Amino acid sequence: MSTKRIAGPEIERLIQLLAKVPGLGPRSARRAALHLVKRRDQLLEPLASAFAEAAEKVRICSVCGNVDTVDPCTICTDPRRDDGLLIVVEDVGDLWALERAGAMNARYHVLGGTLSPLDGIGPDKLNIAGLVERVAAGGVGEVILAVNATVDGQTTAHYITDQLSGFDTRVTRLAHGVPVGGELDYLDEGTLAAALRSRTAF
Amino acid sequence: MSTKRIAGPEIERLIQLLAKVPGLGPRSARRAALHLVKRRDQLLEPLASAFAEAAEKVRICSVCGNVDTVDPCTICTDPRRDDGLLIVVEDVGDLWALERAGAMNARYHVLGGTLSPLDGIGPDKLNIAGLVERVAAGGVGEVILAVNATVDGQTTAHYITDQLSGFDTRVTRLAHGVPVGGELDYLDEGTLAAALRSRTAF
Repeated sequence: MSTKRIAGPEIERLIQLLAKVPGLGPRSARRAALHLVKRRDQLLEPLASAFAEAAEKVRICSVCGNVDTVDPCTICTDPRRDDGLLIVVEDVGDLWALERAGAMNARYHVLGGTLSPLDGIGPDKLNIAGLVERVAAGGVGEVILAVNATVDGQTTAHYITDQLSGFDTRVTRLAHGVPVGGELDYLDEGTLAAALRSRTAF
Repeated sequence: MSTKRIAGPEIERLIQLLAKVPGLGPRSARRAALHLVKRRDQLLEPLASAFAEAAEKVRICSVCGNVDTVDPCTICTDPRRDDGLLIVVEDVGDLWALERAGAMNARYHVLGGTLSPLDGIGPDKLNIAGLVERVAAGGVGEVILAVNATVDGQTTAHYITDQLSGFDTRVTRLAHGVPVGGELDYLDEGTLAAALRSRTAF
């Protein structure tokens, strides 16, 4: 117990919880808490109700693993989406990033991570069985493996490709290449070599 | 209206509000929101109730301007504090910083900002009248002006010194010098000159 209490235990608890939010540390959590309690009507109360509402309503989609307030999620029930195109991602954050890119009118499948033998994450820990089930149900013409270009991501991609080899479904992956706006001088050799191999007509 | 809704409006609202928290931007707010909704029991619900509790209970101390859940605040009612020593700070964050330093067993007075003629902040916008009242009530032997070492902070310090000149109270300010752990090579000339002028016996 500290001998000097600066503020009430409610504020201390708020600071401790805020420090667990990614992007905030112990120091910035204190700044944020002070900012919030000074703006009770504009920020603190709206955040309290937004948090409570999200805690009450947020569901994990039982079909694809997306986070939404309905189950199945908005994307899974959207009639305008192409049932024949399934994009496989590691995490919901990747799904959101692809949706912001807005390039494909597809459905998704969230794995919930990547295979990682060293961390004890085997195929049973990921939503791979669900993916195989969806493909086995038929109607999926193409599965795009939009996993990260990391060792674990690529291992997972290979494993999934094996699992889907028995089905009449094309399995593709994202192109490697120079990021839009990227400068060659700052790119690693692997990316440059991949970009050269996959060069396209100008 | 966007044609593609990724997640429910509750999550979008959560992201928008989180983006207003200092230390978080639009991108990190999205990451934070996802992190929170995936940890409903450990983070989202506790944060919701912590926010609601803070919104309900937090008060601004009518004596010193501190933020607390009681009014007068814990520091103002602490019987072990020295009534004769008053530390004047710009903001509650400065008060918390000084309390963490734990060097003085004093009481505080929060101005709520600094004089800034260019921004239209005159003495009436700050809690200076309250400070003069507290000093006029008697018993305050020393007022330490712990304002920032900025132009506005020093202007405010001079103004307050003028206002308190009629009372039998010593007005002091924080020492300038080399920060503990600081390297001379990285310090500005003003700080070095001040540190030399205020050198002490070794």
